[in-house]
Amino acid sequence: MSALDDLLTCLRFPSVSTDPKHRGDVRACADWLLAKLRSLGLDAALHETPGHPVLLARNVHRPGRRTVLLYGHYDVQPPEPLGEWKSPPFEPVVRDGRIYARGATDNKGQLMAHVAGLEATLAAHGDLPVNLTILFEGEEEIGSPNLRPFLEAHRDELACDIVAISDTGMVAAGVGTFTYGLRGIACLEVRVHGPSIDLHSGIFGGTVANPATVAARLAASLHDAEGRVAIPGFYDSVRPLQEWERAAWAELGDGETETLELTGSPALFGEPGFNERERRWARPTAEVNGIGGGWQGAGSKTVIPREAFVKISFRLVPDQDPAAILDLAEQHLRSQAPAGVRLEIVRGHTGSAYLTDPQSHLGQAACRALEKTFGGRVALIREGGSIPIVQDFKQVLGADTLLLGLALPDCQAHAPNENFPVASFEAGIRLNQELLRELAS
Amino acid sequence: MSALDDLLTCLRFPSVSTDPKHRGDVRACADWLLAKLRSLGLDAALHETPGHPVLLARNVHRPGRRTVLLYGHYDVQPPEPLGEWKSPPFEPVVRDGRIYARGATDNKGQLMAHVAGLEATLAAHGDLPVNLTILFEGEEEIGSPNLRPFLEAHRDELACDIVAISDTGMVAAGVGTFTYGLRGIACLEVRVHGPSIDLHSGIFGGTVANPATVAARLAASLHDAEGRVAIPGFYDSVRPLQEWERAAWAELGDGETETLELTGSPALFGEPGFNERERRWARPTAEVNGIGGGWQGAGSKTVIPREAFVKISFRLVPDQDPAAILDLAEQHLRSQAPAGVRLEIVRGHTGSAYLTDPQSHLGQAACRALEKTFGGRVALIREGGSIPIVQDFKQVLGADTLLLGLALPDCQAHAPNENFPVASFEAGIRLNQELLRELAS
Repeated sequence: MSALDDLLTCLRFPSVSTDPKHRGDVRACADWLLAKLRSLGLDAALHETPGHPVLLARNVHRPGRRTVLLYGHYDVQPPEPLGEWKSPPFEPVVRDGRIYARGATDNKGQLMAHVAGLEATLAAHGDLPVNLTILFEGEEEIGSPNLRPFLEAHRDELACDIVAISDTGMVAAGVGTFTYGLRGIACLEVRVHGPSIDLHSGIFGGTVANPATVAARLAASLHDAEGRVAIPGFYDSVRPLQEWERAAWAELGDGETETLELTGSPALFGEPGFNERERRWARPTAEVNGIGGGWQGAGSKTVIPREAFVKISFRLVPDQDPAAILDLAEQHLRSQAPAGVRLEIVRGHTGSAYLTDPQSHLGQAACRALEKTFGGRVALIREGGSIPIVQDFKQVLGADTLLLGLALPDCQAHAPNENFPVASFEAGIRLNQELLRELAS
Repeated sequence: MSALDDLLTCLRFPSVSTDPKHRGDVRACADWLLAKLRSLGLDAALHETPGHPVLLARNVHRPGRRTVLLYGHYDVQPPEPLGEWKSPPFEPVVRDGRIYARGATDNKGQLMAHVAGLEATLAAHGDLPVNLTILFEGEEEIGSPNLRPFLEAHRDELACDIVAISDTGMVAAGVGTFTYGLRGIACLEVRVHGPSIDLHSGIFGGTVANPATVAARLAASLHDAEGRVAIPGFYDSVRPLQEWERAAWAELGDGETETLELTGSPALFGEPGFNERERRWARPTAEVNGIGGGWQGAGSKTVIPREAFVKISFRLVPDQDPAAILDLAEQHLRSQAPAGVRLEIVRGHTGSAYLTDPQSHLGQAACRALEKTFGGRVALIREGGSIPIVQDFKQVLGADTLLLGLALPDCQAHAPNENFPVASFEAGIRLNQELLRELAS
């Protein structure tokens, strides 16, 4: 059975972690992976959690070798809307050099490339050049609710020198990409309470503060007119971009056109003094993720609503402290509220930004593996999103993570017609072999 | 049968105009009123509309007499929530000097007081001192959708010197109240379009304009921090409050406490330089009646929404022109939008403010009738809401309206336990007789 056949088999499991009716399918996928890893001679077992199982596997760990933890996830996003798929999401097909199926890119294609790389190395050498621990979970798409407790419970067993994950993106096809930084996050919701009932805006308009107006004023107070975050102190602890980063990112060419295409926005907009990539990858933001109050239906209803809300998230960069940022935000928001309303501020989840040094010994090993796999120069990038598990690995296991992703912007992760180029799959197989070799040294 | 018995009978019809299942009840109420007016010797008929019927009635009109159009409505608001009523909404009872039922105040109590006044005059004198046309409609609570076409179709038949309506409020029990002004209205909705899809706020946050943020900025730009409307030119055509108005309203005592109680707001808030009554009755406003965009559910979803909206209404005063105000608003809003969004501005309904002169000949006649009915001084007030039918009477029939309402703040119009004091009903019967007498001269 070829590596591609294995991937196609893996893709046939509708392992949709969020959907209770697919619970058995998630388990079946885990069982199949368990059997696959055992067939390679690895010591593998499923570990129950309150949700879907964690699959652990390892070769025989020998003293004096570097220990690598390889992470991936075998669960997938729901496939809906089904009508937009050109072929059924759980009947994988290869068309024009791409594998089409839910999970093709995220994350089964990248996960199975690692498995196939291990299989090749084991077939050729009978062992791996490092002590390897595999951790494949089935709950990444629902926020990994049971992963951190699992890491804490298996801290010794999972001890490692470095974590490797292929679940991020490449800047372009064929360009080896090392993501060495991620933004953090801090969420809060402001609920604005005003009158005790919805009021007639004719009878009472002009005499009391309108919670919808106040919610809007609070949301608007987050930025100045040019797009800078206007919360006093917000930027104080931001670590400046290094010159080498700005230079390396400038070499990646025009990111603006791609962002305009991907977003469909009429124009770019953001913090002055930084280009599009710098704003996405290395500058903190404040975003209104939701705002609501008053009449939501068609037409008009002339009401002064009794309450309104704003849901805000901040993307953070080194060395911003999430709790300190929420303190500043709360202080700022409270200072903006007029008489006649009461603010209720509810804090949400937080996570620090992540940054590893690509010039470190293991960072350089990863770069060499990417160079050997793809040829040419390695793109050193950060990403704008947050990957909480990377923080978990750092905090629980004390290990940095090498994010060596293979997703391309047009792979449609989380969307209909998700796909993964066969060439990317094959590159992933080579990358696994080069990586373990380089990490061994 | 006494006047009170007639009112109780009228209140037993569940003439809920908005509810198709009460269509027959609305018709039955109209039929009962038709029979009642005919029993007084008036020439009465029901006129069909696309909705509920209009009831017209008249005495014999004689040349040389003043013609008065008396307007009222026999439909009522839905009674829900039923659980909060102390007695069933359509089983009227008198408790502690108040009649409890849906429609007791709005508008059957006030309408039947007029009918009883006419009955008394006709019984005593065999005719009325004026040419009277009665127009009772059954669609006021659903916005009178068929009234204006009806007025236009019956323009000659409805020609009159003055309109009288009892469907507004009194400043306090026992204080005759003449509402000589109403605010106008102009509505618009702004739809903010940004990216073509909802975006991940981690991946793209910082690079594109967020429609929810823009919607908030637009809404916030409507006012300065102290509560003045900040649209350039908004106040330019506002007719200043007259000194006699400010003085007359100041004599009404403290309106602030009542407004705080009625609204439940923690504090008053509004345009500096004007007191609470002045702001409600004679100053224009901008209110956000609805705002929405992005995640509306519990918790957080870190999305940059593709679109957001703000629904805005302006309350207008003489001599603001609704269309000109919407022009100013649109110009202002467009000037506030950053690059990266497209604004769609949809105009809604408009209506001019209304102002009649209480010092006019017929205004003074109304004041004398109120004085004779209630004793003491008449309260000359405006109201903050808009009553489109008053504009319709002005525009179609060319007639001013005397708003001589009998509702008290605690009559619970539109709410559970709606009630009308028996004393107010009896005062309304006297008021009808005094009014027609005074208007005759």
